Formats: sequence, structure tokens, C-alpha cells
Amino acid sequence: MNLSMVVYTLGRVLLCEGALLGLPLLVSAVYKENNGVIGFLVTMVLCLILGMVCSIRKPKNRVFYLREGFVITALSWIVISILGSLPFLLTGSMTDPISALFETVSGFTTTGASVLLDVEVLPKGVLFWRSFTHWIGGMGVLVFILMLQSPTGGSDANLMKAESPGPQVEKLVPKLQVTAKILYGIYIALTIAQIILLLLGGMSVFDAVTTAFGTAGTGGFGIKNDSIAGYSPYIQWVVTIFMILFGVNFGFYFLAFQGKLKKAFAIEEVRWYFLLILGAVVLITMNTWNLFDSVADTIRHASFQVGSIITTTGYATTDFNLWPQLSKTILVILMFAGACAGSTGGGIKISRLVVLCKTVRKEIWQFIHPTRVAKVSVGGKTVPHEVVRSINVFFATYMLIFAASVLLISLDNLDPTTSFTAVVSAINNIGPGLELVGPTGNFSCFSWFSKLVLIFDMLAGRLEIFPMLLLFKRQTWKKF
Amino acid sequence: MNLSMVVYTLGRVLLCEGALLGLPLLVSAVYKENNGVIGFLVTMVLCLILGMVCSIRKPKNRVFYLREGFVITALSWIVISILGSLPFLLTGSMTDPISALFETVSGFTTTGASVLLDVEVLPKGVLFWRSFTHWIGGMGVLVFILMLQSPTGGSDANLMKAESPGPQVEKLVPKLQVTAKILYGIYIALTIAQIILLLLGGMSVFDAVTTAFGTAGTGGFGIKNDSIAGYSPYIQWVVTIFMILFGVNFGFYFLAFQGKLKKAFAIEEVRWYFLLILGAVVLITMNTWNLFDSVADTIRHASFQVGSIITTTGYATTDFNLWPQLSKTILVILMFAGACAGSTGGGIKISRLVVLCKTVRKEIWQFIHPTRVAKVSVGGKTVPHEVVRSINVFFATYMLIFAASVLLISLDNLDPTTSFTAVVSAINNIGPGLELVGPTGNFSCFSWFSKLVLIFDMLAGRLEIFPMLLLFKRQTWKKF
Repeated sequence: MNLSMVVYTLGRVLLCEGALLGLPLLVSAVYKENNGVIGFLVTMVLCLILGMVCSIRKPKNRVFYLREGFVITALSWIVISILGSLPFLLTGSMTDPISALFETVSGFTTTGASVLLDVEVLPKGVLFWRSFTHWIGGMGVLVFILMLQSPTGGSDANLMKAESPGPQVEKLVPKLQVTAKILYGIYIALTIAQIILLLLGGMSVFDAVTTAFGTAGTGGFGIKNDSIAGYSPYIQWVVTIFMILFGVNFGFYFLAFQGKLKKAFAIEEVRWYFLLILGAVVLITMNTWNLFDSVADTIRHASFQVGSIITTTGYATTDFNLWPQLSKTILVILMFAGACAGSTGGGIKISRLVVLCKTVRKEIWQFIHPTRVAKVSVGGKTVPHEVVRSINVFFATYMLIFAASVLLISLDNLDPTTSFTAVVSAINNIGPGLELVGPTGNFSCFSWFSKLVLIFDMLAGRLEIFPMLLLFKRQTWKKF
Repeated sequence: MNLSMVVYTLGRVLLCEGALLGLPLLVSAVYKENNGVIGFLVTMVLCLILGMVCSIRKPKNRVFYLREGFVITALSWIVISILGSLPFLLTGSMTDPISALFETVSGFTTTGASVLLDVEVLPKGVLFWRSFTHWIGGMGVLVFILMLQSPTGGSDANLMKAESPGPQVEKLVPKLQVTAKILYGIYIALTIAQIILLLLGGMSVFDAVTTAFGTAGTGGFGIKNDSIAGYSPYIQWVVTIFMILFGVNFGFYFLAFQGKLKKAFAIEEVRWYFLLILGAVVLITMNTWNLFDSVADTIRHASFQVGSIITTTGYATTDFNLWPQLSKTILVILMFAGACAGSTGGGIKISRLVVLCKTVRKEIWQFIHPTRVAKVSVGGKTVPHEVVRSINVFFATYMLIFAASVLLISLDNLDPTTSFTAVVSAINNIGPGLELVGPTGNFSCFSWFSKLVLIFDMLAGRLEIFPMLLLFKRQTWKKF
């Protein structure tokens, strides 16, 4: 373990967080919230000092392997969450450190699950920070650093592999730093486009910016207690469309902006993603026909909730906990499915599911034709055996952690649907679940122990499990 | 597709069912139940006539492949279930054909999920047949035929592969017919031992035989409305121990009877199986401490329910739906785990889970040591890559069918826990679930459509999924 490199990179991450804290500090100052100004200033100074101490000495040996990449990523996310939770405590918005950590991890991992009963009483600066964590976590803090400057001089792929959602790192261009720049470019452009469209709908600047942050990171923290339900249908449609857009593989936009539209639409994952959304909207519209006043309302609510859940955003315009079971089951299945790889969304990812389904189909085919050689191919290309294998292992690990988490959470003795969907929601970085953790409920019902389990799940879900697991292996920390 | 061979083997299966129907016919005659005598006689004659028609011409080409093996197995189980449901209808015990089919499939697949509200009013002959289907289905009807005479002259391994529970067919001896004989020998010996021990506890002959049938097949149809709750603690302990014994890999007994005890206990799956039972009993005992009068009672109920669920039997001595969530969650997780491969139990099977867990461990190890070669080994032997792959595919297929089933069942608009655990219960061949399908509830709450879905799940679970899926592929039926 190249520990000095780990510490050095952590330092740079902290410096970065310190700088980013400038924005909520500014918001607090604009709204003249003294508590907020002090809270953010203290946290900012702490981040900068710690960051400088850690990164003052450049390590001689700057090479590191996958192991270091995973450890750095996991630790970075833990450390920025711990420091990021301080403003909640320092401003007096929250008093329990575990709950504040839960809220911050929920923010950075773009989960959007809240333990707060009333968010509208929060200072504007804190509300802004809460939404801003979504935006930072959506594309990833290490990718952000990569974009600014390569910290390692060569082994960055191991960082990107650990932080990017999906089974494979897709290098858009050969150079990783350029890839990071393109990704953030698309991210920022889409965010600005959404802010403008929201402003055109009459939203205030503060609301538009924070709502766009929550959408872009597919996070889902609302700044109102009723999430997006109180806004106009126009605004709800804008959010719906942008949620779905942020769930698309960013490689799609890269191709589309280059004019390679045919090639962009040839990405099989993207086509399945849109098909799944369409199918779910149609089924839920049919199933919830009699719940709303008009067909237009039904379609709007169905589209919003489907878009919100499949992209693992978690905004809501209606309490889907009251929907018929078929619609609820569709939503729970979409929670597992998640968005495209290479997007800001969570979940298992459509591309993994496509490969899994094709593997099953291949297996059946193989039973009928035992002597012929069958291959799994996606988008016309054969999926390498190693990728199929790693997807299978990912799926198994995911399910084992899922089962273990539900078991641990059940110590709180809440009803099975609450426990089950709370873990579904945490590990897939969604936000709401059903029953007590439904769109109108929240996660305050859990004990501190369960909150820690869910914090682990949220981080494991965002970082695709293995970086978090590696932290617990003694071998990881050995010197070689 | 060697269709003539399929028809021929189906014919022999029907002849076999016709012969086995002699037993419930005898019981009906002894209890002077005229309805029963007529019902079983008609069904028996029907089976024999159909069986003779199908098997009268021996096919010239007797060779068949895995495909034929799978199709024969799936069709055999469907056909014997359809004919096996006739006595329920002919005796007037049930009026709805789908419900009767559900009950019979639940019997043969050793699920033990019932749609009957009151079983104590059933004629003795029907009660006997209901439990007897468990015993027949436990070891498998095709294995039974194999034992009597090899029907194919060489390709029997493909039959056994399709009907035996577990990832690999374990040939105890090189000759398959001898293996089948040994398996049935152990099965019959253990069943008789249990009957004797139950009789010593003061059970009536009828009760002892039917209870033993339900235990041996890990089925779980009770002959009382309160399952095993009304019997003495001694009887409950006997059933507990035998449920657990029937969930052990039969290879264990084969080695043990040869005096190779050390080799028997070296089977890693068996050790994990006992460890899992022990762990679950300890946790549940601690969790349900205050629910029962004495420590002895608590341990007895915990052991019984754990043994019943992990072996996928489904007998109950108490309503575990009223237990605290931790205990309920443990039981649901055990439902998925299931018993050992090569036993009569259902579920995913301990051996598969052991391989899955070791694959995950290997993956983490590989992240730390990317350049070294890691292998998964169980019981000191390297697990072949092909087995790991097929277990992964099995797991993925299992989960996809699971999700699809829950979705279809949710059309009935029952609460999520009921829908979820009903599918868990059906696909793992257990019997009870939670809430409406809990130990005191039953499956009559479902629509005919959901019953058909659950029938499919029970068959898919018993035959390890792929034989049932193959039926729906057009290619399966093509001539080559």
C-alpha cells in the first residue's frame, strides 16, 4: 500500500472540498445568515488546513495500483462526508452527528434520503449545501480533481475505475484528463440548460439552482417538504425530462455533440433505458387511471415518478406509497435497475442487466445446442468473458450485501416493507422507499446503528461496492 | 427433438403414477370412503391407459440429449400434476381445477403451500395422497423410474441432471441405476426410521406415515389445520431432527454408511449447513426469548421453525408471522438459502451460496493482488470454472424470474410482504410465507392467474429453473 500517495490525494480532495465550500458560504452571506457564515467558514478553514498538511509533501513514489485507487476513493468519500456534515452541526440545523453524517453521505452519494422532518426551516446556506453535495457527488470528486490536474502522473485510470458508475470505464478519448473535462463539460452545460428552463417557468433563482443540482446529480433532496409537488406542471415536466437526460450514458451526448447521432442511438443500453421508461410509464398510467383528475395529470405523475426512480433521483410529485401494488412493484423493480452506466444515476445499471439477461438467454440456447459456441454480444460487439464474469460477481456481491443489510436493519423491528425498501433505496442511491420511508416519510425512524448500516450501503452503492469492501480486508493495508 | 422418446418416457411415468395411486386407493378402501375409492380408481385407470398408449411402441432411436432430458422432466412433472389433481376434484374435496392443480403441484414439488382453508374435513384417502405426493416428488419420479429400469439405455445422466437438486449431479457410484437405488434406499430407510420414532411418541399410524412423508420430501402439507403445533414436544423434536436430516446431502449418508465418517464430515456444504442452522437457532432463541413460557419451549420452537424453513419443508409449530422482525428476516433469508444439494430440499442450495461467497472473496483478493491467479475451491478441491459460471447464471436467472413473478402477482393488489413472500415460498418450495400466506394463512387469497404464476414458480424451483424455461423456446421443439 502506497500510503503516502493515499494521504497526498486525500489532502488534495480536502483542498478541493474547502474551495467548493466557498459557494454555500457565499449563499449564507447573501442571505445574511450569520450562523451559516460561521459554520461554513470554520469547516472551510478546517478542510484547507487538513488538506494542506496532507498534501504538503509530494510523495516520491507516485505510482499506484487498483488497490490504492479503491482505497483512496473509499476514504475520500468518507472523509469529505465527515467534514461535509459539520455545517449541519455548526449551524444548529442538526444536533446528532450520526444523523448529520447520514444526511451528508446521502447528499454526496446522490441518494437523497433525509432524516429531517422539516427542511423548509433550514437556513438557505445549509439548504444550498445539501443540494450542492448532490451535484459534487453526481460526477465524482476525484473525476473533478482529475479534470483540474492529473495527481498521479499515469495511474489515474485506477481512480476513475473506482469512482465511475458502471461495469467498464469508458474512455471517451484516449487521455483521461480530457475525458474528465468532457464529462464535466456536458454535466455543467446540461445543468445550466435546466436552470434556465426552470427560471423561464417562474422559479426563483435559489429554487432553480438547488433543484437543478438535485436533478443533475440524480440526488433528490427537495428544498420543500413536499418535494416537487407544489410546483407547476411545466416545472414538473422540465424536471422529469432532465432527470431522464441525466440518467443517460454521457457517452451518448459526447457522440451526439459530434454529430454522430446514428452511432449515439446505436448504444444498446440507451435504447433499453428509454424502452424501459416508456413501458413503465404506460403500465403505471393504466394502473393509476382513477387516482388523478385527468389523463394529462396521470401521465405527468407516472412519467415523473418513473423518471425519478429509474434514474435514482428520488424527487416526488405525489405519494406513490398510496398507488396500487402493481405500480409500486414496478417502481421497486426500477429501483434495482437504475440508470445507464456512465451517467450520474445509481442502481445495478441497465448495461449490467442487459448483459445478465443475455447471459441467461445464451445459457438456454446452450442447453439446446450444447456443442456450439455461443457468445454474449451487446451493440453488435462481443462482451469479453472477463466483463461477463465481473458483472456476475458484482451481482452476487450486491445481493449478499443487500441481504446482510436487511438483516441488520430488521433489529429496529420496523415493518418488513420499510426495512426492505430502505435498503433498496440506500444501496441504489434513490432516496424514498415505501411505507415509513415513502415519499412523505423519512429515515428518522431508524436507530443510529441502522443509520450506520445505511450509510455503508449508500457509499457501497455509489462506489459500486468493492472499494468499500476492500477497506475491511487486512491484506489491503499490508506493505508489499 | 426426439419426440417419440419423449412420449415413450412420459408413458412410463404415467404407468408409474398409476401404480403409485394404488396406495391412496387402499387407504380409501380401509377407511371405507366410497368417494375416494371411485376417485382414485378412475384416476388410476386413466393413468394406466394413457401410460400404455404412450409407451406401447418402443422408439427405435433411444438416444437423447440434454434438451430431451429437460423437456421430458418438465413435461413429466406437469402431466403427473394434472392427473394427480383429479382425485381432489373427483372426490369433491375441491371444485376449482386451477386450485386443485395448485395443490397437486405444491405437493409434488414438495412446496406444501395450500389453498385449502380446512384440511381436517378432507377424506383420509385424499389427505394421504396429498402427503404422498411430497414423498414421490422429494426424490423425483424419474429417479424412481431409473431405479427400476434404465429407460433410455445410456443417456440417463441427462434425466438425472434435470431432476436432481443442486448444481452438479453427484454420481455416488459409476452406474446411474445403482446410484438411484442407493438414493431411494437411504430415502426409504430414513422415512421408516421416522415413522417408527413417531409411533413410539404415541402418534396414530395414519398420522405418523403422512407426517413422515411430508418430512422426507421436505414438503410440509399438514394433516391438521395447526400443522404440527398440536403434537407433543417429543414429536416436534423428532420432526425437527428428521427435517434437518432430510436436508443433508445424501452423499453424506452414503459415505457415513460405508464407515467413511471423516470423509462424510469433510463435505464443506454439510458443515456450513449445520453452522447456519445453529447460528439461526441461537439468534432466534435470543430474539424470541419473551414470547414463550420457558427456555426449553423457545429453543424447541426456534429449532423447529429454522429446520422447517431452511430445509424448505414448511411445517410450523407456532405462528412465526408474529415474531419480531429480526427473526422473520432470518427466516426469509433461510428461505432463499435452502438445504444442501443432493437432498430433497429446495431453495438456492447451500453449495451454490458457498461458491458464490467464495467467488466474492476471490474477487476482493484479486483486486489486492491483480497479477496473481486465484481459484475458488470447496472442500479442498478447485471448483471448475464451468461450475462457477453456471452457478452465476443460475443465480441471475433465478432473480429475474423472481422479480417477474412478484410483478405479475402484484396485479392482485395484496400487500407487498404477502406478494413477495408468496413468490419466495413458491420458487424455493417452502410452503408458508408471511402475512396472508403466513403459517396460519394460506394461498386461497390469490386469483387464478397468480396461482398459475406460482405453479410455474414451484415447478421452476423444483426443477432448477432451466427445464421449465426450455419449454417456452421455439427452438427446443425443432427437429435437427
